[in-house]
Amino acid sequence: MDKACTKADILCLLREVGAGAVTPEEALDRMQALPFSDLGYAKVDYHRAVRQGTGEAVYGQGKTQEQILGILSDMRVNGSRNIIVTRIDQGVADYLLGEGIPLEYHPFPRLGVAMPEAVEKRGSVVVAGAGTSDVAVCEEAALTAEALGNSVTRIYDVGVAGLHRLLSHHDALMKARAVVAVAGMEGALASVIGGLVSCPIVAVPTSVGYGASFGGLSALLTMMNSCANGISVVNIDNGFGAGLIASRINQMGGA
Amino acid sequence: MDKACTKADILCLLREVGAGAVTPEEALDRMQALPFSDLGYAKVDYHRAVRQGTGEAVYGQGKTQEQILGILSDMRVNGSRNIIVTRIDQGVADYLLGEGIPLEYHPFPRLGVAMPEAVEKRGSVVVAGAGTSDVAVCEEAALTAEALGNSVTRIYDVGVAGLHRLLSHHDALMKARAVVAVAGMEGALASVIGGLVSCPIVAVPTSVGYGASFGGLSALLTMMNSCANGISVVNIDNGFGAGLIASRINQMGGA
Amino acid sequence: MDKACTKADILCLLREVGAGAVTPEEALDRMQALPFSDLGYAKVDYHRAVRQGTGEAVYGQGKTQEQILGILSDMRVNGSRNIIVTRIDQGVADYLLGEGIPLEYHPFPRLGVAMPEAVEKRGSVVVAGAGTSDVAVCEEAALTAEALGNSVTRIYDVGVAGLHRLLSHHDALMKARAVVAVAGMEGALASVIGGLVSCPIVAVPTSVGYGASFGGLSALLTMMNSCANGISVVNIDNGFGAGLIASRINQMGGA
Amino acid sequence: MDKACTKADILCLLREVGAGAVTPEEALDRMQALPFSDLGYAKVDYHRAVRQGTGEAVYGQGKTQEQILGILSDMRVNGSRNIIVTRIDQGVADYLLGEGIPLEYHPFPRLGVAMPEAVEKRGSVVVAGAGTSDVAVCEEAALTAEALGNSVTRIYDVGVAGLHRLLSHHDALMKARAVVAVAGMEGALASVIGGLVSCPIVAVPTSVGYGASFGGLSALLTMMNSCANGISVVNIDNGFGAGLIASRINQMGGA
Amino acid sequence: MDKACTKADILCLLREVGAGAVTPEEALDRMQALPFSDLGYAKVDYHRAVRQGTGEAVYGQGKTQEQILGILSDMRVNGSRNIIVTRIDQGVADYLLGEGIPLEYHPFPRLGVAMPEAVEKRGSVVVAGAGTSDVAVCEEAALTAEALGNSVTRIYDVGVAGLHRLLSHHDALMKARAVVAVAGMEGALASVIGGLVSCPIVAVPTSVGYGASFGGLSALLTMMNSCANGISVVNIDNGFGAGLIASRINQMGGA
Amino acid sequence: MDKACTKADILCLLREVGAGAVTPEEALDRMQALPFSDLGYAKVDYHRAVRQGTGEAVYGQGKTQEQILGILSDMRVNGSRNIIVTRIDQGVADYLLGEGIPLEYHPFPRLGVAMPEAVEKRGSVVVAGAGTSDVAVCEEAALTAEALGNSVTRIYDVGVAGLHRLLSHHDALMKARAVVAVAGMEGALASVIGGLVSCPIVAVPTSVGYGASFGGLSALLTMMNSCANGISVVNIDNGFGAGLIASRINQMGGA
Amino acid sequence: MDKACTKADILCLLREVGAGAVTPEEALDRMQALPFSDLGYAKVDYHRAVRQGTGEAVYGQGKTQEQILGILSDMRVNGSRNIIVTRIDQGVADYLLGEGIPLEYHPFPRLGVAMPEAVEKRGSVVVAGAGTSDVAVCEEAALTAEALGNSVTRIYDVGVAGLHRLLSHHDALMKARAVVAVAGMEGALASVIGGLVSCPIVAVPTSVGYGASFGGLSALLTMMNSCANGISVVNIDNGFGAGLIASRINQMGGA
Amino acid sequence: MDKACTKADILCLLREVGAGAVTPEEALDRMQALPFSDLGYAKVDYHRAVRQGTGEAVYGQGKTQEQILGILSDMRVNGSRNIIVTRIDQGVADYLLGEGIPLEYHPFPRLGVAMPEAVEKRGSVVVAGAGTSDVAVCEEAALTAEALGNSVTRIYDVGVAGLHRLLSHHDALMKARAVVAVAGMEGALASVIGGLVSCPIVAVPTSVGYGASFGGLSALLTMMNSCANGISVVNIDNGFGAGLIASRINQMGGA
Repeated sequence: MDKACTKADILCLLREVGAGAVTPEEALDRMQALPFSDLGYAKVDYHRAVRQGTGEAVYGQGKTQEQILGILSDMRVNGSRNIIVTRIDQGVADYLLGEGIPLEYHPFPRLGVAMPEAVEKRGSVVVAGAGTSDVAVCEEAALTAEALGNSVTRIYDVGVAGLHRLLSHHDALMKARAVVAVAGMEGALASVIGGLVSCPIVAVPTSVGYGASFGGLSALLTMMNSCANGISVVNIDNGFGAGLIASRINQMGGA
Repeated sequence: MDKACTKADILCLLREVGAGAVTPEEALDRMQALPFSDLGYAKVDYHRAVRQGTGEAVYGQGKTQEQILGILSDMRVNGSRNIIVTRIDQGVADYLLGEGIPLEYHPFPRLGVAMPEAVEKRGSVVVAGAGTSDVAVCEEAALTAEALGNSVTRIYDVGVAGLHRLLSHHDALMKARAVVAVAGMEGALASVIGGLVSCPIVAVPTSVGYGASFGGLSALLTMMNSCANGISVVNIDNGFGAGLIASRINQMGGA
Repeated sequence: MDKACTKADILCLLREVGAGAVTPEEALDRMQALPFSDLGYAKVDYHRAVRQGTGEAVYGQGKTQEQILGILSDMRVNGSRNIIVTRIDQGVADYLLGEGIPLEYHPFPRLGVAMPEAVEKRGSVVVAGAGTSDVAVCEEAALTAEALGNSVTRIYDVGVAGLHRLLSHHDALMKARAVVAVAGMEGALASVIGGLVSCPIVAVPTSVGYGASFGGLSALLTMMNSCANGISVVNIDNGFGAGLIASRINQMGGA
Repeated sequence: MDKACTKADILCLLREVGAGAVTPEEALDRMQALPFSDLGYAKVDYHRAVRQGTGEAVYGQGKTQEQILGILSDMRVNGSRNIIVTRIDQGVADYLLGEGIPLEYHPFPRLGVAMPEAVEKRGSVVVAGAGTSDVAVCEEAALTAEALGNSVTRIYDVGVAGLHRLLSHHDALMKARAVVAVAGMEGALASVIGGLVSCPIVAVPTSVGYGASFGGLSALLTMMNSCANGISVVNIDNGFGAGLIASRINQMGGA
Repeated sequence: MDKACTKADILCLLREVGAGAVTPEEALDRMQALPFSDLGYAKVDYHRAVRQGTGEAVYGQGKTQEQILGILSDMRVNGSRNIIVTRIDQGVADYLLGEGIPLEYHPFPRLGVAMPEAVEKRGSVVVAGAGTSDVAVCEEAALTAEALGNSVTRIYDVGVAGLHRLLSHHDALMKARAVVAVAGMEGALASVIGGLVSCPIVAVPTSVGYGASFGGLSALLTMMNSCANGISVVNIDNGFGAGLIASRINQMGGA
Repeated sequence: MDKACTKADILCLLREVGAGAVTPEEALDRMQALPFSDLGYAKVDYHRAVRQGTGEAVYGQGKTQEQILGILSDMRVNGSRNIIVTRIDQGVADYLLGEGIPLEYHPFPRLGVAMPEAVEKRGSVVVAGAGTSDVAVCEEAALTAEALGNSVTRIYDVGVAGLHRLLSHHDALMKARAVVAVAGMEGALASVIGGLVSCPIVAVPTSVGYGASFGGLSALLTMMNSCANGISVVNIDNGFGAGLIASRINQMGGA
Repeated sequence: MDKACTKADILCLLREVGAGAVTPEEALDRMQALPFSDLGYAKVDYHRAVRQGTGEAVYGQGKTQEQILGILSDMRVNGSRNIIVTRIDQGVADYLLGEGIPLEYHPFPRLGVAMPEAVEKRGSVVVAGAGTSDVAVCEEAALTAEALGNSVTRIYDVGVAGLHRLLSHHDALMKARAVVAVAGMEGALASVIGGLVSCPIVAVPTSVGYGASFGGLSALLTMMNSCANGISVVNIDNGFGAGLIASRINQMGGA
Repeated sequence: MDKACTKADILCLLREVGAGAVTPEEALDRMQALPFSDLGYAKVDYHRAVRQGTGEAVYGQGKTQEQILGILSDMRVNGSRNIIVTRIDQGVADYLLGEGIPLEYHPFPRLGVAMPEAVEKRGSVVVAGAGTSDVAVCEEAALTAEALGNSVTRIYDVGVAGLHRLLSHHDALMKARAVVAVAGMEGALASVIGGLVSCPIVAVPTSVGYGASFGGLSALLTMMNSCANGISVVNIDNGFGAGLIASRINQMGGA
């Protein structure tokens, strides 16, 4: 019984018991040995893996380059494509390339896409960033969404202290099915966008700032307390998570 | 020029100028007097109002019953239906009913639906709650989503300390287009659901708990740091906000 | 198939399939309908219930007296005895008694034992409290441990500012298989006991204090940072949890 | 030597010594007895008193009505007018009126102006508030500024989730010499105004909100971290302080 | 239509439409392409730029030297002078000088003034600092204010533990139109100055200190809670912001 | 062997063993039964009791009036006089008086002195308070110090925003052997006094204030970070503790 | 009288006094010179030392390699074996080996076992870790428990976002006498295990994570607030402490 | 008029005015030029300087070695001896020695005593430290107290987890006039000593620890909340401040 086993497979096993081909004792053993998801209760996905759409992901931070190579090689064999590898340095990227892993590496957000393959871009995700220092987190979100098959519009450096910059992009905002709003410091960008659009907004506080920004806590609290509707928040600097959620929302709307 | 004025209306106004029907000076005056959204930059919606789908909302806390009556009366005249009124006591509900406002009042989540009207329920939103004490927040989310035209499945008292309770609802979870995960104390429910479903999850920390729960802060941080994918977080006890976001996601999937 | 179903029951079901008494389809239905614990993966226990030893528990806070009555009546029918009901007021206790629930109520820790029955007390648990204001939390721990069948020694008002008071109880401390150390304010009691005994210590910070005690946070941090070995910490004011853990440790040592 | 004694008075005293009219010993005594400000080092003003422009102030919270009456009576005798009395209830206001103190009482911001007198309003202070719940703090700022002789424009309910509401007041904002920006929840109003005006902005976080607003801390941090220029912040709910600072800035620009 | 376009320009455009020189469609296009501030709603200024008085600013932290060079070159072409460049190291300064940017670099506050030009110093701003370790932040404020055309008096090392040092500068304090009070550790300097002067005080907490100073949080809270009047606070170490605000206040008083 | 047993008593017991009057086994029993202080390791004092000088103390908060009566009756029998009873309401005071306990009750600091007796006042303790709202805590410190036999000078309402008020008391400050500095809000009083005197200063933060005073945390941090020498800090609102420490320091200087 | 002196030794000393072999004065001297534990009040163990079972421990962080060598040499002479040395780098390990200390060094958890000796492994301790980044802390716990003579089962990378991975180990979990649950980020692992097992669980929050994980605080709070029973918590990253407590619990159950 | 000018000098100046030797105008000038302390209001001491007893101090952190040399040279000329220089590295010490400053440097607490001179040691100060990692802070306190002329007893590594170690020093503790209690982690040492002695205790939290010690915050809160009497607290790691306060207390008791 391979990994593709599902609820149907259990029925199949039960039938084999009914047919006497498998003893009850052996059936119990095999049921316990099944990955839990085979019972229909859970998915087989690895930690942080994404199996919807066109890609999967490896969270690179805290893993050795050998571990990452091992995981990617395994995924490659299984036919995975457009695997997002987050938070890896150029050195790791070079190592992976040297070991024969096809990889598109983006040094600014420190993100790679392994086994890259053309993927149809659907719908409309907007990634909006408040300041130039937020761009790395923005790119983590944008590249994640693109690897997962979403059409992405980037609107950067549109902090609320210069409203006209944001408002000049209203057409893109109005067409978005999901907006990722990235901001450090006071994090007010999400609220202002929340007053403009009617699609869901995923807010990403960043650790950009100094003093009382407290490593992103200030922006996180701002976004949490937004008086605008439709805003939910992910962890500080978690561009990947926001890009993934925006992808899920956007893909719900079809092509 | 009424409220429905849009970018087309500006073009229309410009044409009137071009046709000499309106002087340039008068046009400038009228453009400044327009609600900003008429320019296409923003929506005319009041604070916390929701104008998509089938309903709007009034945040009751901190408003006098007279103010709420005034707002609802105004909305009623404008033809609004299924207006969600959050965080009002029975006394306020009685006052509104006494003043002739049709109102379905739900005392547990302290929420009313004014000018209620049958609305087609579409798609599938799951509202999952960890403990019995979280039910009020759960209901705020569920009733909000229902008033906005979403089909809602309630899964309550499914805290992670008794996994079987949650897992027995896997069919409902698997069919959901959006899940609202409500939990106080350690707030781990969102993470566990995040490992089971592939749709977006809106997590709501609640102020349920004591001691080191710090009024919901512990649950908020847990949800923020979830190792599962697809989870974003709203403010502590903000069932309304989560219900609204889940509605927006669900409706994106069509009927 | 009743609640007592275990892994053996699944084997039994499989055998019925093998014998043709149950169709595979029906078996699958019945397996999905089983409480998860029946599969051997989890316990059937309710939230906060305790089904080891001699008792179970109901967390009273945030529940209506009708809900508590319902739960206790259900448990009574199922033959449960010595059910600990925490954080209920005298009024609730009176209501339960009036409804015919046998209940030993302790007003100070606001705790009742429903369907009380003599239970053999085994081993040795010490509950030590720093100040007179900590006694309510101490009693929640001590009564919990007693209802679960543990022999309990109470050592109260032994704060570290008067070491001789604590040290005069060294015989009891030395004989303990588990110590519950309850302290608010600076919470140093756990550390001092940690230097005296070699059994596990469960530390309970309390919300007793004022100013920079920050509702128990100060005591929690103190206990967390103890330089003594063998100390682990539960939530602020969580006497029940500490009593339960101490019971589990003590019972491990047999009678 | 009366209170009006200044550096000139010390010279005058020294001259009396030089002239033999005062002994050195007596001069030393008199110098020590002088209020410090008489030496030119400090002002004689009471705590929170304001002696510039046209008014003074009494911080009512934590004072008995008898103490407030005593202070006001004393000030009245000294000829003070338009004394701002903050944070007093209707009961205290009634008591003061009953004791013969002329008082204009404003119940919403719980603020009175004692010994009211017409005062010329100069310049232009804008008080902008994000939500309806912030109006009490707004009014504390606005009434303070008015009692101190400033022309005040109120712009309320202009939270950033509905930009058009704020932007429709741009003329008033552009003419302002000082803006008081009052906001709870996410507190982004100050940043947005900071991108629009070039005068100084005094930001007042309010304790309005729930959950992760943490009693105004979230708004305070947002304002502290504003990416806009020209914003400084006062304590949570400190409308009086902001009104006073705005007055000082506005008056610097002359009539 | 160049950047200098204002409300008059829109009228002008409308008149062209009225005159048939521009079609309505083209006018709509041109209006959308306008920077928002051209409509009178907002300023065209870049993030953190200052376009009042005599200077502008570039926040150097988090920008590459190439980005800074690009921005300065652009500003130079536009005729900007006395541009403040904050938080750049000597290496960046050398690079800019090597690329031909005229730059006065101050290594202690890590601040440069690009395209320096003599500017008339007006009014009176006092920058007061508590300790020798606060001098870098003090200088950021003082140099900012000077570049913006303000006459600045520096009063350093006047912490409240040695009152005589501060009081010996009372003449300068009394003449100030705005005071910047810079202090780390306990941050009490602002309060003491607040009791001495009647002009607005901009308080800057610094990250100077250790232990319970918590990176400036202690000083920030102290200043926020000052019992003196006229004090508002900017972010920790934000000397630039304070200098800018003091400049705006000072310039309001004319030459 | 009574409570007065000391190291000499152990020697005495050993001598009785040596003399055969007491068996070794009985001696061991008696040694274990001794209060620990009898061994010279610790004092017999109750929690928060003070047995130096002329008084003892009962911390009233969290104790029933019956418990307080019991403790005081016991102390009275043992000949204790001038017992400080802190944090009791008028009702408790009336109860104690009704039960025959001689008690001088001070309603403002909610403090009583039981079994009052004239006591010689020695040395010089200054209790300085920043604002009128701090007076209750000041009085707790002052009355404690007086009951313990110290001569106390009260200097109230001398907040740093009006330095002249504080400085006018320099003679008293200069003569002090210990200063208790009480302040809420920004708590800068201790620093300023620290720059004036050379005796030890015990700083008491108070919970007076609002908003970012965070219940006294702001004042606590300020005092902790004081740049002045000679300042140590007690818990928020802990006037009793400060009065006791000041007493111990003052008494060290003799009469 | 050697270190092994106990209560019996005091009796013995008293008997010598009774027999006249020791004078009372000399006996008093000897009693004061005794290590306190000799009196039965406390153990002689060094800070963080463990003298139960089969091992002792040295906390390496903050000690020089010479200090560690000295301590280990001393322990070696005293016959100690299987001494756990925590938080030392490879360099320290090499130094100790070079100085002749037998040492098994584990670089990943930076832990060594000095004077290693085979020890019988008893009972069953499970160490469960949520993510791959938590393995170092897991290993500190597991190696500690093994050195102390416990049979340890490692279950790593079983975070709650993939329940099937954890549930596939239910047999090991069900057999455990104590579980150490190690998790960073949201720390929900302990709660889920708490719903599965009935033995005590020692939860270890780790500093793994970023942003709002706040160095382990988020995981600590989650574990503290667990809705599951039987969970107590140790300090962030304190694998050693958890391993020790689990050992004490496990050993209570005998072989 | 030199620095030694006091109140008597002002009288003297006034007399010169009275005698016509000085004009009133010149007298006013000279009075303003006087250091403030000359008027009796404040001391001339530099920030953190100590001018009582036998020494003065320079806080080295954040000062260049040239600045420190300048200050010490100036002090040397003025005849200062035993000047404590805190927080300087070996390199700075070598520089000072190379420039001819006599300096006793202690590398562990990074503290030097410049212009060292034999000083009579009086009274009794005990410096007690909980762990080996706290010794650097202990030594800063001890060396400070010694340089100021106090007899110091060091009691190190006496953490509360091994009470016997502390209790074996009871004689020294009982004789102390002031105790400095230094502890990181849980900081309970101060409380335990507070139960043993009746002299004032100055508690110093240290930044020793990890995880939930939060850089000393945990120890600080513990000490702040001590249930023992006589304890006041200084900043984290502030050994110098504690040594100074202990000196002031000790010296009050005479030789």
